[in-house]
Amino acid sequence: MILHAPASRLQFLDTGELQLESGRVLERVTLAYETYGTLAPDGSNAVLIQHALTANSHVAAHDDADEAGWWGPMVGPGAAIDTDRYFVVCANMLGGCGGTTGPASASPGDGLPYGSRFPGVTLRDGVTLEARLADHLGIAAWHTVIGGSMGGARALEWAIMHPERVERLVVLAAPAYSNADQIAWAHTQLIAIESDPEYCGGDYLALGRSPENGLGLARRIAHLTYRHGSELDTRFGRARQRTSRPGERPEYYQVDSYLDHQARKLVNRFDAGSYAVLTRALRDHDVTRGRGGLQEALGRIQAGVTLIAIDTDRLYPPAQLEEIDRALPSPPGVHTIRSLRGHDGFLMEHDQLAAILAATVFA
Amino acid sequence: MILHAPASRLQFLDTGELQLESGRVLERVTLAYETYGTLAPDGSNAVLIQHALTANSHVAAHDDADEAGWWGPMVGPGAAIDTDRYFVVCANMLGGCGGTTGPASASPGDGLPYGSRFPGVTLRDGVTLEARLADHLGIAAWHTVIGGSMGGARALEWAIMHPERVERLVVLAAPAYSNADQIAWAHTQLIAIESDPEYCGGDYLALGRSPENGLGLARRIAHLTYRHGSELDTRFGRARQRTSRPGERPEYYQVDSYLDHQARKLVNRFDAGSYAVLTRALRDHDVTRGRGGLQEALGRIQAGVTLIAIDTDRLYPPAQLEEIDRALPSPPGVHTIRSLRGHDGFLMEHDQLAAILAATVFA
Repeated sequence: MILHAPASRLQFLDTGELQLESGRVLERVTLAYETYGTLAPDGSNAVLIQHALTANSHVAAHDDADEAGWWGPMVGPGAAIDTDRYFVVCANMLGGCGGTTGPASASPGDGLPYGSRFPGVTLRDGVTLEARLADHLGIAAWHTVIGGSMGGARALEWAIMHPERVERLVVLAAPAYSNADQIAWAHTQLIAIESDPEYCGGDYLALGRSPENGLGLARRIAHLTYRHGSELDTRFGRARQRTSRPGERPEYYQVDSYLDHQARKLVNRFDAGSYAVLTRALRDHDVTRGRGGLQEALGRIQAGVTLIAIDTDRLYPPAQLEEIDRALPSPPGVHTIRSLRGHDGFLMEHDQLAAILAATVFA
Repeated sequence: MILHAPASRLQFLDTGELQLESGRVLERVTLAYETYGTLAPDGSNAVLIQHALTANSHVAAHDDADEAGWWGPMVGPGAAIDTDRYFVVCANMLGGCGGTTGPASASPGDGLPYGSRFPGVTLRDGVTLEARLADHLGIAAWHTVIGGSMGGARALEWAIMHPERVERLVVLAAPAYSNADQIAWAHTQLIAIESDPEYCGGDYLALGRSPENGLGLARRIAHLTYRHGSELDTRFGRARQRTSRPGERPEYYQVDSYLDHQARKLVNRFDAGSYAVLTRALRDHDVTRGRGGLQEALGRIQAGVTLIAIDTDRLYPPAQLEEIDRALPSPPGVHTIRSLRGHDGFLMEHDQLAAILAATVFA
């Protein structure tokens, strides 16, 4: 099950067996990825872009006829991440539904979707898999590993797990660990999905069921943490939705309609089991696990570090980037993007982002 | 169905028929309330306390043997709201489940619970009903009407609907209208309840079903808006729950357990239909409805106004109290409670609240 990953340029690496951090083993793991630009003969120009919770490897269009990517204005010839100069790689996270092995994939044993049999994975498991892709592509060290939100957390793990393979690290709107607030928001979303009777304990695909209500509700909750209250109020206020659709009551507000639209969009492009697996992976994100304290964990990093916060981010507030900064051996400071968009500013404030990247990693 | 309203001191007023703001009519409406202290012969010492979304008329214990109330430390002999001096009244909101007619009440027609037949109500409908209680008790004008959260919104409506009957008004952690952010959070909670198959379109009681999952999830979402992220992180961090309960996985965090506990507590004491009806009433709260702009609506108030915000409130941020302040003919300023607790500070920061009330309404 590959959802909305344009198949034309999607590439697959069969990586064989993967031993997970938990000790469990996944057989025959496939990693889906896309590349943009050309790798320099000395392999020095490779940039790894890490996607967020529900995105995929399609970070940008490959040509004019191609579908837009989730960070389109940031990546391309002459763009902030310039594919005329850099070889850009974006891989779908382990457990996702954009081509990489996940709960909706066929299990090697019986060919049925993994469903409830798919094991819990961690962001570190994702990095382990992606290191195989770097080997495959002949990339000894990434010029830059960059990501926002879950992608930022994964980028951070890359620089800690493989310090010698990451020359520059950009962490955007992401923490060193998910704190109690973020664990709690994840909890509400997991309950929304898993208490939908259509979820069937995770085996809905094999049973021909579809937990759309649960996934849609999880997305609505998540989306509210992605945006900022005053942005929503500026855009929608108390305006009612004016439609003539039957059954629509007068108290249906425009912001309700907006949230319902966000929910429908996700339900149409994303797998509920992947959402649960990745939500747990992000919830369990903690660079200190098994590494002592925060300074010890972050002290492993050899990359030059760029930290970027969004001032209105109510999911990962700037204080969490400042915490990373303070714990680094040479605190680089935190760049702040000013945005009305809240956390989602990392997907939208391209100009500010481009300026920061031009002044730091791509200087 | 009266949940957790200690019956011993609960009083009932049969108010007959109630014409709602929507034009619909509710027959034989009962209002449940409690009183504390003694009404002065001239009726000048009556204080109306308005409860929040899931509270009830039991604002404080009536004696040492009585169950604690939701604002216990604030109300009693010698307390901030001194029942030796004041006659305190607290009534259960229309649509609630603390004794006042609501969706779980028996319908006069067939004796079965109203369920889906219970009409939408507004905070103004609640005030209309409570004005009958004031008539019944012989209270021409309230010395003070005070409330926090939904109670503050209702207190505001009291002072606008009956300016001559409210001498002092205290609005605590409540807005002049629910904005898009608050409408959106309400939307997620309504979906959580109404998409639970056990809800049965609202008729679960008559059918012997119980939408516990949906109500519990709504409460978890709401509770996260009631608290502040850094409070949760200080209290729980990433600590796991250490129990030996079977089936509990290592990734069950203390903050998950805390949220689950909050959900269970509410499910055991509150009706899902009331939760939906009151959530809609609060969502539809807008003092400007049918009254022109904010200045015109608030310009009707004759009471002396005290506005109190909580600095960490992420449900009703201080800016919404400041907005009321700016729109009042004589802006009284906004008192700010400093709290780690977020919105729920209105239920917990008794000392700061007492000091503000002593300096203003009870000076």
